[in-house]
Amino acid sequence: MEKDIALKILSAVEANFDKQTDFLSELVSHPSTRGQEQSAQAYMADALSERGYSVDRWQINVDDIRQLPGFSPVIGSYDDAVNVVGTHKSATSKGRSLILNGHIDVVPAGPLDMWKTPPFSPKVEGDWLYGRGAGDMKAGLVANLFALDALRSAGFAPAADVFFQSVVEEECTGNGALACLQRGYKADAVLIPEPFDETLVKAQTGVIWFQVHLKGLPTHVAYAGDGANAIEAAVPLINALHALEKRWNAPEHRHHDFAHHDHALNLNVGKIVGGDWASSVPAWCVFDVRMGVFPGQDLEAARADIETTLLQAAEENSFLRENKPTVVYHGFMAEGYALSDDKSEPASSAIKALGAAHKAVTNKDLEQMAITCTTDTRFFGLYANTPALVYGPHAEAIHGFNERVSLESIKRVTMATALFIADWCGLEAQ
Amino acid sequence: MEKDIALKILSAVEANFDKQTDFLSELVSHPSTRGQEQSAQAYMADALSERGYSVDRWQINVDDIRQLPGFSPVIGSYDDAVNVVGTHKSATSKGRSLILNGHIDVVPAGPLDMWKTPPFSPKVEGDWLYGRGAGDMKAGLVANLFALDALRSAGFAPAADVFFQSVVEEECTGNGALACLQRGYKADAVLIPEPFDETLVKAQTGVIWFQVHLKGLPTHVAYAGDGANAIEAAVPLINALHALEKRWNAPEHRHHDFAHHDHALNLNVGKIVGGDWASSVPAWCVFDVRMGVFPGQDLEAARADIETTLLQAAEENSFLRENKPTVVYHGFMAEGYALSDDKSEPASSAIKALGAAHKAVTNKDLEQMAITCTTDTRFFGLYANTPALVYGPHAEAIHGFNERVSLESIKRVTMATALFIADWCGLEAQ
Repeated sequence: MEKDIALKILSAVEANFDKQTDFLSELVSHPSTRGQEQSAQAYMADALSERGYSVDRWQINVDDIRQLPGFSPVIGSYDDAVNVVGTHKSATSKGRSLILNGHIDVVPAGPLDMWKTPPFSPKVEGDWLYGRGAGDMKAGLVANLFALDALRSAGFAPAADVFFQSVVEEECTGNGALACLQRGYKADAVLIPEPFDETLVKAQTGVIWFQVHLKGLPTHVAYAGDGANAIEAAVPLINALHALEKRWNAPEHRHHDFAHHDHALNLNVGKIVGGDWASSVPAWCVFDVRMGVFPGQDLEAARADIETTLLQAAEENSFLRENKPTVVYHGFMAEGYALSDDKSEPASSAIKALGAAHKAVTNKDLEQMAITCTTDTRFFGLYANTPALVYGPHAEAIHGFNERVSLESIKRVTMATALFIADWCGLEAQ
Repeated sequence: MEKDIALKILSAVEANFDKQTDFLSELVSHPSTRGQEQSAQAYMADALSERGYSVDRWQINVDDIRQLPGFSPVIGSYDDAVNVVGTHKSATSKGRSLILNGHIDVVPAGPLDMWKTPPFSPKVEGDWLYGRGAGDMKAGLVANLFALDALRSAGFAPAADVFFQSVVEEECTGNGALACLQRGYKADAVLIPEPFDETLVKAQTGVIWFQVHLKGLPTHVAYAGDGANAIEAAVPLINALHALEKRWNAPEHRHHDFAHHDHALNLNVGKIVGGDWASSVPAWCVFDVRMGVFPGQDLEAARADIETTLLQAAEENSFLRENKPTVVYHGFMAEGYALSDDKSEPASSAIKALGAAHKAVTNKDLEQMAITCTTDTRFFGLYANTPALVYGPHAEAIHGFNERVSLESIKRVTMATALFIADWCGLEAQ
């Protein structure tokens, strides 16, 4: 790319950045937790439409994707699960096509009194924009949009088809991205600006979600005996799961990108509910677990190991022996994915192009990172043979209280993204 | 009492018993869990009114009772908490007055699929009547009413004032019974037919309810570290509370009526809620605890011991050290009570009268029992200097699934109650 074109593009990002920040603030104010994404998706669809992209907005049909590899089991309907894709159709199609993907769903805010300012009333303080989802990943989603805007402001359009995807369900299943695949969206590469500190994600763990259900016969507390309590019976099961976590993290089981990481696979008891009344011995308890898996780790074997582990632990507890725990899979059933294992030409040239764009903006080499969670890249990488790059801004406390994202970092990522699009797709006149 | 009068009364109970069973079934069908007692109370008030008792029906005002000994802290209002008292005013007042007390509130049913038949669709099978609250203690409440009916059917009325009390809040605070005291209801003795298998309760433990609140800083599970999980941080606290339970149950701390009971004081973690999302490290967790205390055990010292125990355990956990647990008292703050410690004349004559009534019906001596839970007797015994007797039918699975009460036992208790009233109050013409 000629230097003056690059400079024009970077200036355009700079010139639009206040508008971009306002747009992001507005988007963060939509509390798009699972099931509540509609207003945020409408906002995105309008923004795409205003810019002249053709907009595809559809409700996910579970039956369309249930049989596909990568599908995660869900309980309940997808009545409220709407994906939005805006398409830029190139006039010349001389370059390589691209999917710019991001997710609109955010995780719950948690107790509101733990937030300094309300989670869905975004606030800018110095370099930080605060709010639930500001970092994970509305900043990235908006960066995709404004990177395209910058090309346009500079007088260009991508010389290949670009599909701007705003998907639901990233935080619990990935079925939103899977539905995009099923709908036929394909491209030569994918970029997802998840907030990993301006590094390129070379590998990510997979994630399994499961619920453990305990149920037994309760009594009046006056007759409580040892081990009759469904809440306390969860404890030995959690301990057994931590032992499994330790086994899975052992050096000999590690994927090469995690060789020096002692604890890449995290087991998290993220939610628990049990019992009805302080003076009734609780007869039931349900806890939700998230467990990581390495790229290449077989999910079926992982599930079997989880179930065996729980049943073995149950044998050693008087309540559980009589009331076997049951496992319900509801949510993530996600394989790990390693871009580093993709030795194809498109993968290496996409990485190279992103590295060059990053260096042009930051004057630094693009670092690579193995992350201990999942992103939607796995669908493109594993099931559509498309190199999928995660590269996004610096954020803090994602999934926590007072989540925030760095505005300067967003600006750099938007710049690098715009340059990457220009390089990967090439440019044509508007 | 002359033998033919006693026989007349017993025959009247027998003759009315189908009606009594129907009345009980109807009452059980009202799902009078805390906050939902109104329709059941209306049913009781109508039944009392139909019989010609003067009915006092009032909403409890927390401010009226807050300063009284025995008050249990509550969160929220008592907008829905309505007591019902029906009064029989004696024409002669030659006998001793009596309070017949019972509670209308029932504990939650728990998961409905654990019930063979729906908890609020009572069902008779052989000798058993099934339903939530059938045993605890609608059977007793109805036995009180039909014992009075039997006297009437036999042509008599009690020769002293009798106050029929149907109270709320027994299962969580006792503030319903306390409100009856505050409203001025006094008598020479109290009978409460809680379902303790046709024995006389000589002593009961007290009960403290408390909630332990944990709150900290959560993160994305990708960055989960040891001890950052509020749900798992509950475990060492629960363990510490069980150590306290063991200390309190030590032989040297026992009330004499519990001298040979190794585990009279039960600690129950009855409810737990924590976390919002499987993939967010949970930042909060709340668990509800019920702990017993012996008669005579000082509640203030007990609370201090609980709090110290929790804070000491918190020091040994990395999450808790930075995020101290807080204790909220909400519900039972109930002292123990031992009728056996009441050496007064009224107490011994009431026990004697009940023993005689029991023997007349069952041909057996009245056994005495120390129970490991609380009842509303404590208010009358401790704060109104009135002997308070618990004597009720045989029931099973109270607070459990498929709770049931024995119809034959109800009949015997109704008979014994009627004879006890006749003896204690004396009889006058209707």
